[in-house]
Amino acid sequence: MSPDPLLSARVTRDGTTDEVAVEEPLEIRVDGAPLAVTMRTPGHDEELALGFLHGEGLIGSEARSAGPTEDFAANVVEVAGPLLREPAARRFYTTSSCGVCGRGALDEVAVHADTLPAGPVVTRELLAGLPDRLRQPGFARTGGLHATGLFTADGGLRCVREDVGRHNAMDKVVGRALLDGLLPLHGQILCVSGRLSFELVQKAAVAGAPILVGVGAPTSLAVELAADRDLTLAGFARGDRVNVYCGEGRLTTT
Amino acid sequence: MSPDPLLSARVTRDGTTDEVAVEEPLEIRVDGAPLAVTMRTPGHDEELALGFLHGEGLIGSEARSAGPTEDFAANVVEVAGPLLREPAARRFYTTSSCGVCGRGALDEVAVHADTLPAGPVVTRELLAGLPDRLRQPGFARTGGLHATGLFTADGGLRCVREDVGRHNAMDKVVGRALLDGLLPLHGQILCVSGRLSFELVQKAAVAGAPILVGVGAPTSLAVELAADRDLTLAGFARGDRVNVYCGEGRLTTT
Repeated sequence: MSPDPLLSARVTRDGTTDEVAVEEPLEIRVDGAPLAVTMRTPGHDEELALGFLHGEGLIGSEARSAGPTEDFAANVVEVAGPLLREPAARRFYTTSSCGVCGRGALDEVAVHADTLPAGPVVTRELLAGLPDRLRQPGFARTGGLHATGLFTADGGLRCVREDVGRHNAMDKVVGRALLDGLLPLHGQILCVSGRLSFELVQKAAVAGAPILVGVGAPTSLAVELAADRDLTLAGFARGDRVNVYCGEGRLTTT
Repeated sequence: MSPDPLLSARVTRDGTTDEVAVEEPLEIRVDGAPLAVTMRTPGHDEELALGFLHGEGLIGSEARSAGPTEDFAANVVEVAGPLLREPAARRFYTTSSCGVCGRGALDEVAVHADTLPAGPVVTRELLAGLPDRLRQPGFARTGGLHATGLFTADGGLRCVREDVGRHNAMDKVVGRALLDGLLPLHGQILCVSGRLSFELVQKAAVAGAPILVGVGAPTSLAVELAADRDLTLAGFARGDRVNVYCGEGRLTTT
């Protein structure tokens, strides 16, 4: 299979050639005004922009055009506004005098994340096996890409995206779902190829995914946020084993 | 050994208790004004703030106090200004009309990174073995922390820091070196426990480290930037093997 030039690039290494994951900056503009620059793997830039803005609570879940066609060479993606609120640097304040704190971060997510449904109910075996179902052709070539997959409750793969940034991979999956009118992701499962940080739980919760599975370890604030939003958080998913940190109500043994 | 409460926290998991990496927001203030919020593992916050600001070209390498004592509970660290320039969101413009691009990102780093020295000269075996010399007690407990180590040219470990964020771990090492008056890091080697992104090469180059080694894969822009700065970039370092992508002039077989 010939490589996807957006995913991997040839470099010289030790007197031979090798493939590495492509990393390029992307500027996200809203109504023509620059909002953010992220380092990402090119491709699916409209999804990335929409997923990112949705995860930050800046746009709703209604489908929208991102404006002009993607121009990978320009590394710019345009999104039509208006935004739901003025974008601001993250603060996580609780009061004006107390600095920042984890509780403030949790409360900020709660503003944008609706309550998750009680289901779906799945087996541990299903969660443990999801990483093996993630298609990662770019990773196979480069060892340098993260992946996020969207799965149905019976383990069917609906969408997978690869990116040098773990957050970008999830943003692209959520953005694709937004464009397809599939938000919120009730009844579905997100699975990531790496660790489980606060921001990944935030993006899953805001997208309405009740279950998030990762190959790697969760952080303390990821577990706290998942518990706060009643999201099922599972880490260290490897073939036949998985650790479940909260939201056990969605697990069944039958 | 009792756990370091800044590095790992106990959570309930599958009816038992488990340790996860601590993640909390940190606000970096300069002369009292909030500049950035990053999700990090608490501890060495002054190092993190100074290393971050140095990597962005916002402060020089002269040692300085970060102002008031670190207050982990408040998650705020104060840095005394003034900054070398006005902090701005990353742009990576080349001209005002062409959008953003990798070449612009490289040029932006070049402004802040002096030319690296020709040495040190080391063996591939030494580079391949550095990850095994990284002390990672937090990772051993949680599986959820990245590490950066600063090594002498003969493989002696001078400093190691762990953090949930790979960039934070390197910022802390560079910040420690800044406080100790050891910048630029000529003649020394930085080694990271994970992948090699553009931003990690940027931080190493600005800190003056001629060699950067990683356990994981490099990205395309990481290789480009390393080649542009004449930095020796080595990935997939695992026991007895290592891939060298550029800067082979610092390698010897004897």
